Amino acid sequence: MTTPSDGLGAGSPAPVLDRAACVRLDDADPLRSLRDEFLLPPGTIYLDGNSLGARPTGAAERAQEVIAEEWGTGLIRSWNDAGWFDLPAKLGEKVAGIVGGGAGTTVVTDTTSINLFKVASAACRIQAADAPERSVILTQRENFPSDIYMLEGLVEQLGDGYEVRLVDDAEVAAGFPNALTDEVAVVVLTHVNYRTGRLFDMAETTAAIHAGGALAIWDLCHSAGALEVDLAGAGADMAVGCTYKFLNGGPGSPAFVWVSEALQTRFSQPLSGWWGHRQPFEMEPSYTPADGIRRYLTGTQGILSMSVAEVGLDVFGRVDMADVRAKSLALSDLFIELVDARLSHHPVEVVTPREHAARGSQVSITHPEGFAVMSALITRGIIGDYREPEVLRFGLTPLYVGYADVWDTVEALREILDDRLWDVPQHKVRGAVT
Amino acid sequence: MTTPSDGLGAGSPAPVLDRAACVRLDDADPLRSLRDEFLLPPGTIYLDGNSLGARPTGAAERAQEVIAEEWGTGLIRSWNDAGWFDLPAKLGEKVAGIVGGGAGTTVVTDTTSINLFKVASAACRIQAADAPERSVILTQRENFPSDIYMLEGLVEQLGDGYEVRLVDDAEVAAGFPNALTDEVAVVVLTHVNYRTGRLFDMAETTAAIHAGGALAIWDLCHSAGALEVDLAGAGADMAVGCTYKFLNGGPGSPAFVWVSEALQTRFSQPLSGWWGHRQPFEMEPSYTPADGIRRYLTGTQGILSMSVAEVGLDVFGRVDMADVRAKSLALSDLFIELVDARLSHHPVEVVTPREHAARGSQVSITHPEGFAVMSALITRGIIGDYREPEVLRFGLTPLYVGYADVWDTVEALREILDDRLWDVPQHKVRGAVT
Repeated sequence: MTTPSDGLGAGSPAPVLDRAACVRLDDADPLRSLRDEFLLPPGTIYLDGNSLGARPTGAAERAQEVIAEEWGTGLIRSWNDAGWFDLPAKLGEKVAGIVGGGAGTTVVTDTTSINLFKVASAACRIQAADAPERSVILTQRENFPSDIYMLEGLVEQLGDGYEVRLVDDAEVAAGFPNALTDEVAVVVLTHVNYRTGRLFDMAETTAAIHAGGALAIWDLCHSAGALEVDLAGAGADMAVGCTYKFLNGGPGSPAFVWVSEALQTRFSQPLSGWWGHRQPFEMEPSYTPADGIRRYLTGTQGILSMSVAEVGLDVFGRVDMADVRAKSLALSDLFIELVDARLSHHPVEVVTPREHAARGSQVSITHPEGFAVMSALITRGIIGDYREPEVLRFGLTPLYVGYADVWDTVEALREILDDRLWDVPQHKVRGAVT
Repeated sequence: MTTPSDGLGAGSPAPVLDRAACVRLDDADPLRSLRDEFLLPPGTIYLDGNSLGARPTGAAERAQEVIAEEWGTGLIRSWNDAGWFDLPAKLGEKVAGIVGGGAGTTVVTDTTSINLFKVASAACRIQAADAPERSVILTQRENFPSDIYMLEGLVEQLGDGYEVRLVDDAEVAAGFPNALTDEVAVVVLTHVNYRTGRLFDMAETTAAIHAGGALAIWDLCHSAGALEVDLAGAGADMAVGCTYKFLNGGPGSPAFVWVSEALQTRFSQPLSGWWGHRQPFEMEPSYTPADGIRRYLTGTQGILSMSVAEVGLDVFGRVDMADVRAKSLALSDLFIELVDARLSHHPVEVVTPREHAARGSQVSITHPEGFAVMSALITRGIIGDYREPEVLRFGLTPLYVGYADVWDTVEALREILDDRLWDVPQHKVRGAVT
C-alpha cells in the first residue's frame, strides 16, 4: 500500500518501511491512548517536547481551580487548606517515583540552575569535611551551558582554590581514565546531552566517580520522564532536573532536587531560606535546617506554575517507564533508519548515538544549513528546534508522538532538502531561538 | 444615625466616628472604583493583602490565554512570539515604575530570598574590591527571618571572616549611632517590618549607611505597592521584594530585584545561570554576564505565575501611589482610632507606630490570646493573620479595602473580646499558619 507521501525522491534508496507500516505500529502502540492526555494544535507534529513538553488536557482546568477557588475564595487560608505549602514535597514524591529516588528524597522547587547551585555547594561542603584537599568540580565540556555557568559562579564564591574543570564526553564514557584525579571533589554530569542526545550510564559512571573519591551529581533535565532512571539504584549522590520538558509541567515550571538519604542531612545548602527551616512559622532568628530534603527549599514558590506542573506529573502515574523507554527507542530507531535510507544523498549526519545504551529520547542531525532547514520544517507544522552549530533536534516523546509522525517528519525533511525549500530568505532570519 | 452594629459595649467610650461616617468616607474615596478590579468572596473583609494580595479580576482569563494559546498552540515558539523570554524585564519595568527604580534597573524573577542572596553577594564583592577590611553584614534583628537566614547562608559560603550582625530597630531608626562601624560592608534592611508595620525612612537611613561606608540593600516586600517608594531618589544601592503581597501577583508569584545604575555592572552575582548570560542562546562554554540588570537572572522562569503576576502589576498603571498612600494612612488612622476608642477596656496594644512617617500599610495589635482572637475573627469572614508572639496583623490595602471594612473589623473584634467568643477550643488549635 502506498499513499501520496510515500513517493520517493529521485535517487533515494528503497525505504525500509513505508508510511502504512508506521500507521500499523501506531495502531498497535500500547501507549497510544495517552495521546488523549495532551492537547496539540491540529496539523502539528510536535518534536520539541525535549525543550517544552506539550500541554496536558487537564492543565487549564487545574489553573482555573487554583485561581478561582484556592486563591480567589480560599485566599491566604489556602496555604494550609489547599496544601500549597506542601506542594514541593508532594510533587517531589511524584518525581521521585519517576526517577527512582525513593520516598522523602525529592522536592520540586526553584529552577534547575538554582538547585544545581544548592547541591553542588552542599557536595563541596561534604568533601571539605571528608577530603579537604579536593577542590575541583568536574563537568562535561558539552554540558548544558547553564550548568557550567552556575558552577563557575559557585567556585568564584567559594574561593580557596576551587575550580571548574571541563572534560570531553569520551572521557566520561570511558569512566574517567585521566580526569578523575585526587583533586576532584565533585563530578556534575548531565545524564543525556541536550544537543546530541547521548546518554551516559548512570550506575557505571557513578561507580567510577565514587572509586575516584568524588561525589556524583546528575542533571536529569533530558532524562526525567524520557527514560528509566534509577537514582537510588545507581548510587547517585544528588540530582537536579526540570519538569517542563519530558514531564510536561508547563513553560518554566519548577525544577526538582534530589539528595540521597545518606547525604541529605550531612550539610545544609547556602540558599537557606525560610521554606527550608525546621520550623518556618516559628520565626526563629537563626537558621536551623529541616531534617530531611525540605532543607533544599528556599523561598515562597509560584503556586500557579507548581499546581499546573502536577497535572503533567500525574500522567506518569498511569504509565510504566519501561513502556515509555521501549517506545522511545523504537521511535528513534525508526527516525535514524529513515534518515539513513532517505536522506543519505544530502550532507546530513546523525549525531545521536546509534547504540541504545547511549541514546536518550531525541534524534539530532546536522546539516550545514540546519537553521534554515528547521525553519522550513516549522513552517510546515513540524516543530523541532535548532542548536548551534548546525544541529537539528527532534525530541521523541512517547506519550504523544507516534510512528507516522516520524515518517512524516523525515519525509518533509527529504522534500525540503531535495527541493532546497530552505533556501529562501525567510528561513534564514535568526531571532532569539530557544 | 446608628445601625445595629453601631451599638457600644458596656463601658466603651463614645466613638470618634460611627459606621455611617465610614460609609460616607467610602463614597467619597477616589480609589473606590478600583475595588472592581479584584474579586473577593461575598461577605469577606480581606485584611491579609500584606501576606497574599487579592485576586485581580483579569487573572483567570490571562491564565487561560497562556495555557490555551501561548503554551497549547504556540508551544515552544512562544518563548519568542509571546515574549516569554522578555517577561522578567517587561515586568521589571512595571515594578520599577511603582518603586521609583528607573528604566532598565529591575527584573522580576525567582524568589525574594534568592534575589537577596544575589544582591548581598554582589554587594560583598563590590566592597571586597573597594573596602576589603569590611566583612560584616548588618541587618535588623526583627527582619523577616528568611532574610537573616539567607545572609547566614551567604556568610557561611563566603568564609573569610564574614559575619551577620543583628541590630535593633531603634538603632536603625536613630541612624546607626553605634552599629555602623568600619567593619560593616553591607546593611540589609526591610523597609516595613512585617510584624509591627514600622516603616523606616529610606533616604535618611541610606544616607547614614553611605556615610558609614557601607552599601544599602532594601527589602520592599511590605512596601512595594503599599506606599510611595523612591529607590533612585533615596540613593539606595540594591533592593528586592515580592509581587504577591500589595502587588497582587498571585500566590508565590515571582519576586523582583533592583540594582542602582551605578552598581549594576560592577560585579556579577554568583547565581550566574544562562538567563543572565550576555548571549544565552549562543551556548558559550563560559559565563559572560549581560550588560545590564539581566545579569541578575538565573534560570528559566515559571511563565504561568509570571504572566498572571503582570495582571496585578497592571492595576498600578491606573493609580497614583500618592493616592494609595493617602488612603492607606487614613485607613490605619481610623483603625488605630477605633481600637483606642472601642477596645481600650481589653488588654490590647497597638504596636504599629502612630507617627505617619514610621507607619507602613498595616495595623498590628497584640492581645495575650491573639491566636484565638484571630481565629474567631476569621470564622466571621474577617481575614487578618497572626504572627508570634501575640500579634494580630491587619493589612490595609487601599485598592480593595474601605473605611466601613475597618469599622466592621474593629466592631467584630470588640464583640469577640467583650463576649470572650475566642475562648472556645476550636479557636485554640494551632495548625501551620502562614
